[in-house]
Amino acid sequence: MFKTVNGILHIENVNAVEIAEKLGTPLYITSKSKLEENLKTYEKAFPDAGLLYAVKANNNVSLMKIISKHGFGADVFSDGELYLALLAGFKPESILFNGNSKSEREIRMGVRAGTYFSVDSIDELHTLSEIAVEEGAEVKIAFRVNPDISAETHPKIATGLKTSKFGIPREHVSDAYTLALELPNIVPAGIHCHIGSQITDLSPFIEALNRLFDIAGLLEEMSIDIEFLDMGGGLGIDYEGRGVPTPEDLAERIMPVFRERSSELSSKPELWLEPGRSIVGNTTVLLTKVNAVKRAYKNFAAVDAGFNLLLRPVMYGAYHRVAVANKMESEPEETYTVVGPVCESGDVIAEDRKLPRVEKGDLLAIFDTGAYGFAMSSQYNGRLRCAEVLVDGDRYHIIREAESYSDLAGKQLVPEMLFSDGF
Amino acid sequence: MFKTVNGILHIENVNAVEIAEKLGTPLYITSKSKLEENLKTYEKAFPDAGLLYAVKANNNVSLMKIISKHGFGADVFSDGELYLALLAGFKPESILFNGNSKSEREIRMGVRAGTYFSVDSIDELHTLSEIAVEEGAEVKIAFRVNPDISAETHPKIATGLKTSKFGIPREHVSDAYTLALELPNIVPAGIHCHIGSQITDLSPFIEALNRLFDIAGLLEEMSIDIEFLDMGGGLGIDYEGRGVPTPEDLAERIMPVFRERSSELSSKPELWLEPGRSIVGNTTVLLTKVNAVKRAYKNFAAVDAGFNLLLRPVMYGAYHRVAVANKMESEPEETYTVVGPVCESGDVIAEDRKLPRVEKGDLLAIFDTGAYGFAMSSQYNGRLRCAEVLVDGDRYHIIREAESYSDLAGKQLVPEMLFSDGF
Repeated sequence: MFKTVNGILHIENVNAVEIAEKLGTPLYITSKSKLEENLKTYEKAFPDAGLLYAVKANNNVSLMKIISKHGFGADVFSDGELYLALLAGFKPESILFNGNSKSEREIRMGVRAGTYFSVDSIDELHTLSEIAVEEGAEVKIAFRVNPDISAETHPKIATGLKTSKFGIPREHVSDAYTLALELPNIVPAGIHCHIGSQITDLSPFIEALNRLFDIAGLLEEMSIDIEFLDMGGGLGIDYEGRGVPTPEDLAERIMPVFRERSSELSSKPELWLEPGRSIVGNTTVLLTKVNAVKRAYKNFAAVDAGFNLLLRPVMYGAYHRVAVANKMESEPEETYTVVGPVCESGDVIAEDRKLPRVEKGDLLAIFDTGAYGFAMSSQYNGRLRCAEVLVDGDRYHIIREAESYSDLAGKQLVPEMLFSDGF
Repeated sequence: MFKTVNGILHIENVNAVEIAEKLGTPLYITSKSKLEENLKTYEKAFPDAGLLYAVKANNNVSLMKIISKHGFGADVFSDGELYLALLAGFKPESILFNGNSKSEREIRMGVRAGTYFSVDSIDELHTLSEIAVEEGAEVKIAFRVNPDISAETHPKIATGLKTSKFGIPREHVSDAYTLALELPNIVPAGIHCHIGSQITDLSPFIEALNRLFDIAGLLEEMSIDIEFLDMGGGLGIDYEGRGVPTPEDLAERIMPVFRERSSELSSKPELWLEPGRSIVGNTTVLLTKVNAVKRAYKNFAAVDAGFNLLLRPVMYGAYHRVAVANKMESEPEETYTVVGPVCESGDVIAEDRKLPRVEKGDLLAIFDTGAYGFAMSSQYNGRLRCAEVLVDGDRYHIIREAESYSDLAGKQLVPEMLFSDGF
């Protein structure tokens, strides 16, 4: 967890200033106990549900190892995520291979491993069946259905709208399952939807669950035994400190509906959830050093982490709490806009924040950066990606090394002709 | 260059379908002759100017080697870009180290190499002077001045606004140069501004140039000999095929102003320009394979490249021309929205495009992806970054190898404790 000791931010018992000096900045630091607390919250709120961690939020293998040891499954979105999830110890039979555009190679990898598949199109269903036949495997699938539900979040991550690229339109669902029953080596076993990300109003979840049960009724008429209803992820976290619904709140709202509507069915489907952000989001801070303070039209604090490491502010206008890690007990004095080193005006991490007086050399902490933080990082502007650290009480462990120049140049090849003078 | 032979897209004389089958997709392919044509256009339009290639647009070492051999200098924005630029053969004395948030490590690297510096804040000036003294080096600088000019482009890349994070406000410029004259090992040698990117109206460039000359007059009163006036980059390219101003057009508009206003000065400053996009943008196509076509609310063509490889559409709402590379001579038949494999609704590469009938297995070409394409790529969703290829007539050369799973996991370290059962 995060606390202040003698005016300095501590991650569990590790002093932020000391670790930044030792390992350099920028630096992502995760609290192991916060992660385990989040896992326990879900386990307690949903004792009977299938909990699939959404790897897209953070695919660090060490964090995923902790998550898999807690008995979670995984929701993967690519061959690379499947690879990392297997490395972290998730069992293939508790992995759902998601995604709207899977290549043949990815499908084959999932079939060979033995994951479940969420199928997003009829084209994909055909490819999957062909590959399953070739591999001599039976594949359990759900269709991702487009629930046509509007969840209030950023349009780029509202994935349940009728117009979104995801899922089978409701009016095609019946035909899709009929085809799935006909095609060889395909076993329809569930129904999947996902309405978006960072959702803080619970009503759309109820709506989505009801849609799944409506479809379940239809499938039972087709004699399909429904093993699971996967309502996806999307529960938001409290970036702004205003209070948002917790996993317990979600359970309280949906479990009565789930129980009531389950009684309509002769199958006994399990509820599946795909939490990502609400597992890892608040476990992590990004530490970043102030290179310069500039008093211009505004006060700018120019730090060494930009949208190369944390894309959310520029991409979604996202808000992250910011603190001066070495001045945690100083009074807020001035308003600063915290900007990164990237070559674009949009590279603003936090706008107009009241902070203690900020000076060159200060260390800023950007909170709640465990989800869609490092996962979306790039080497834009030739910037090296930073290290990740796991804190466990008094101890810390480097769980990802910082990059070096070889990570910019190592894959590059200069053709021989370019070494000759007259090319 | 790009042409159609027997209905198939060719990059120079290389068949797009054949190379995609051989090397796999997605694939960035650059035409060497197109790149050299663009370089020659600039050389001819600006025979007396200092042309600094903006590395941020594309830091592939092979492409930069071609650019440096043409006598260009480089504008770098980080230690990593400086490293790659030096590797590509740019001479330090023709490199300008740009950036609003340089770390001490970056400044030291530039000082040791012997680059010019564009200084963005008084804090940076002090750091630079201290490091220059430590290293026993004299450093030639320009301040990046905030010209307070509005160029019509996407707000995220309009960098010359008063409110932007970049540059010294005009009212502080005089004080800044006074301090630069006082601080040890600092030699004020020029003035720098940059008004934005993908600019297709030339008037703001004239305005910017006039601002630079206004400041130059001021500096001469301070007995500063002005070696260069760097008006930055930002010239747009013709993404939509509607016709935009060329480098020749830019030269025609600004050179008369440059000559006339130079006559006011006793210094004989060189004009510096920082073209990036207009050098590499139209040299490159991104080839991507259709994994599935889905007829839903719209027709979606789901391809294997998403915003992990090409961020511009989701980030800036950018438009890229799209063609079916294996059906170049087929008539447009239907309207498709081309979507990538990323887990977000925003992962749309091209919306509502009239294309020949698209089927699973087709190859799409996304044009004009040489600038801010691979440079902004990420491994989001655990996706491996693709290869880059340089085509030279009949031959092609892999200039960046595709990533493998080791590029996702190789930097990761799992602490020993996580291998024990009871952690």
